[in-house]
Amino acid sequence: MKHYQEMSREELTQELTLLEEEYAKIKDMGLALDMSRGKPGADQLDLSMDMMDVLDSKSVLKSENGTDLRNYGILDGIPEAKKLMADVVGAKPENMIVYGNSSLNIMYDQISRAEVFGFCGNTPWSRLDQVKFLCPVPGYDRHFAITEKFGIEMINIPMTEDGPDMDLVEKYVNSDPSVKGIWCVPKYSNPQGVVYSDETVRRFAALKPAAADFRIFWDNAYVVHHLYEDNQAEILNILEECKEAGNPDMVFEFCSTSKVTFPGAGIAALAASEANIADIKNNLTIQTIGYDKINQLRHVKYFKDVEGIRAHMMKQADIIRPKFEMVEQLLEEEIASRGIGKWVNPLGGYFISFEALEGCAKEIVAKCKEAGVVLTGAGSPFPYKKDPKDSVIRIAPTYPSLEELKKAAEVFAVVVRLVSAKKLLAEK
Amino acid sequence: MKHYQEMSREELTQELTLLEEEYAKIKDMGLALDMSRGKPGADQLDLSMDMMDVLDSKSVLKSENGTDLRNYGILDGIPEAKKLMADVVGAKPENMIVYGNSSLNIMYDQISRAEVFGFCGNTPWSRLDQVKFLCPVPGYDRHFAITEKFGIEMINIPMTEDGPDMDLVEKYVNSDPSVKGIWCVPKYSNPQGVVYSDETVRRFAALKPAAADFRIFWDNAYVVHHLYEDNQAEILNILEECKEAGNPDMVFEFCSTSKVTFPGAGIAALAASEANIADIKNNLTIQTIGYDKINQLRHVKYFKDVEGIRAHMMKQADIIRPKFEMVEQLLEEEIASRGIGKWVNPLGGYFISFEALEGCAKEIVAKCKEAGVVLTGAGSPFPYKKDPKDSVIRIAPTYPSLEELKKAAEVFAVVVRLVSAKKLLAEK
Repeated sequence: MKHYQEMSREELTQELTLLEEEYAKIKDMGLALDMSRGKPGADQLDLSMDMMDVLDSKSVLKSENGTDLRNYGILDGIPEAKKLMADVVGAKPENMIVYGNSSLNIMYDQISRAEVFGFCGNTPWSRLDQVKFLCPVPGYDRHFAITEKFGIEMINIPMTEDGPDMDLVEKYVNSDPSVKGIWCVPKYSNPQGVVYSDETVRRFAALKPAAADFRIFWDNAYVVHHLYEDNQAEILNILEECKEAGNPDMVFEFCSTSKVTFPGAGIAALAASEANIADIKNNLTIQTIGYDKINQLRHVKYFKDVEGIRAHMMKQADIIRPKFEMVEQLLEEEIASRGIGKWVNPLGGYFISFEALEGCAKEIVAKCKEAGVVLTGAGSPFPYKKDPKDSVIRIAPTYPSLEELKKAAEVFAVVVRLVSAKKLLAEK
Repeated sequence: MKHYQEMSREELTQELTLLEEEYAKIKDMGLALDMSRGKPGADQLDLSMDMMDVLDSKSVLKSENGTDLRNYGILDGIPEAKKLMADVVGAKPENMIVYGNSSLNIMYDQISRAEVFGFCGNTPWSRLDQVKFLCPVPGYDRHFAITEKFGIEMINIPMTEDGPDMDLVEKYVNSDPSVKGIWCVPKYSNPQGVVYSDETVRRFAALKPAAADFRIFWDNAYVVHHLYEDNQAEILNILEECKEAGNPDMVFEFCSTSKVTFPGAGIAALAASEANIADIKNNLTIQTIGYDKINQLRHVKYFKDVEGIRAHMMKQADIIRPKFEMVEQLLEEEIASRGIGKWVNPLGGYFISFEALEGCAKEIVAKCKEAGVVLTGAGSPFPYKKDPKDSVIRIAPTYPSLEELKKAAEVFAVVVRLVSAKKLLAEK
């Protein structure tokens, strides 16, 4: 198919006329579709329903260490849940804390703790004139919302196909003591699906931060969220790499079962060095008596071990893979073939990150909305919701049914073509 | 029986000799008993086991408003859980947020939020030179641990039989803008079991704080924790009273099912004015996506309504009442009869607060420990763990079996007599 960029003024005008007619027809259909939400579909959730049976009134609700899990006690997670979550990220149980239902809340608490109390004896960030965070972009809007809330200055770091631009990361981290952290989703990044290369992970581990309390916030949200059985990304173990590089305390790793079992009713965990774990527990013991140990036990009994989780995730992959592939194929045929958009087909995670022609994202999202198709707000994957190129649109294929998704993706394709043709015509 | 204070030097010396012999015998018994923990006993927990059956793989995990509770969504609690917890404290559902498993964590978050962001647009406490909290004493050690952790100056307020000394509370709150809060356990207070009188609650509601962001932290931890069916304390509704007095935003009320179902696997809630709820949600939406909605549903399905909770608590009362009464009787016979200790028999809650002769608490706790009976550390119920009179000892009768408790209380009585006799003799 001819790329729009290669079309003459006349050809583009003709194309635009046709697209405007088509768009008008779509609007008349009164659609109500949604590709905005990074949520599992009901059929994915159905897969975990048996977890509701593993504990009942006949169960002995005791930990393997003898603790009655119905009562107070155990601040940092039951031993068997620490083992399970440690195996998920390849850490040791003694480097884990298993919390409640939300890894986002763990991250918030870590930032809050740094602001008020400081990490490991360092000056609380709230007492410093300036605190900065590096934000690989596009990234996860809720990460940026936390740092924005605390008034932390966010600096965009462009993503490459191997992870964040490490030259830039090294430049900032190794020279500026006000740079205190970086948000990372190292595997199947949100929203691009980028997998950090071994070199990227090693360069992270080898950072020589100007700030003693610089921390990598390593949100391994999609650690077991593969789309394919035979093509699964693996990344290096950041805790081990940091330790070997002489930076054992430089990283907090986060994970959860939110998109494994039930979002909101799963378990979440943090992995870190002994010194960091001790520092956190020192504060945590003031904050709470402990987390929901029965739900931790429920997850352990259901999965038995990390292999149980992996097998479960393959069942989920079978459900969502067709959704991803359908969108990818449609984008390929309708958009890529016309030279008006880019993306990388992810091997896992929850999103496709579509890159429209510059200056088109906001209009595409607005016109989709007008036609009854909700997309994540343009700009969302950037600090302060500002996409410097106004080009990135996050597509979330998991939640709608395949049929709804197909309809929504078709509308999306028409709108992308329409907005792109208009833009290119205006530039002629 | 003769009061120790009325004994002659000779009588006291003789008594002391006998007690020292008895104490030596007790030490030889190698006891290992514990009256320190405010935890339900296993038999109390057994009462809630049926809750493990109310949801299973066949259940429809939907809220009455249609939300799929297995997925993301709902920040502030499912409607039916808001209703249940609202009824527990006599509030309206729209004034509730239902959280995760820990009311202590809600309190911590509120203090943390005030420090970093400020309440309802007020200056964050961390930017002020001085922040003070009033602490009715004796009180709950974990309250004081939170305020101490944040560097908040704590001021002791003596408890009366009607609640905190309100003359003092009014003096501080109405005149000093650095007084930002007060910790209250208004019903069956920890550890004394004091029930705030109607006048006390009304005087609280009628405070005219010098600080716009002064808040009453109303920890209604024992709201349904009665010991008797026919003698139950009720307190006035602080939210309503504050509203009527023109101070709708002055109070946060906290409650949980920690000592109703399973500590650590229950649900916790906050009640507050519309303005406070909006202010909290504004921050909460950055902190988390939501709390465990399935466990909220589990509690609602199990109890059905607040009457279900009340009936359940009467079953618990039947288990723990004999423990309280046994300790009270033993203290009456062995201690009160000799004039060497005071307490008030509580009508609910989890503790008996024993007041020894001045200067004796630490030694009693130490000597009990030496004899194999663990008590809560002397000083624990006071800010900075400093009991100005060294006289208060918190007794927790619920966790040990009746038999163990009896043995422990007997040892306690001997030790109180021993330490009291020694003290009085030294003063002769």
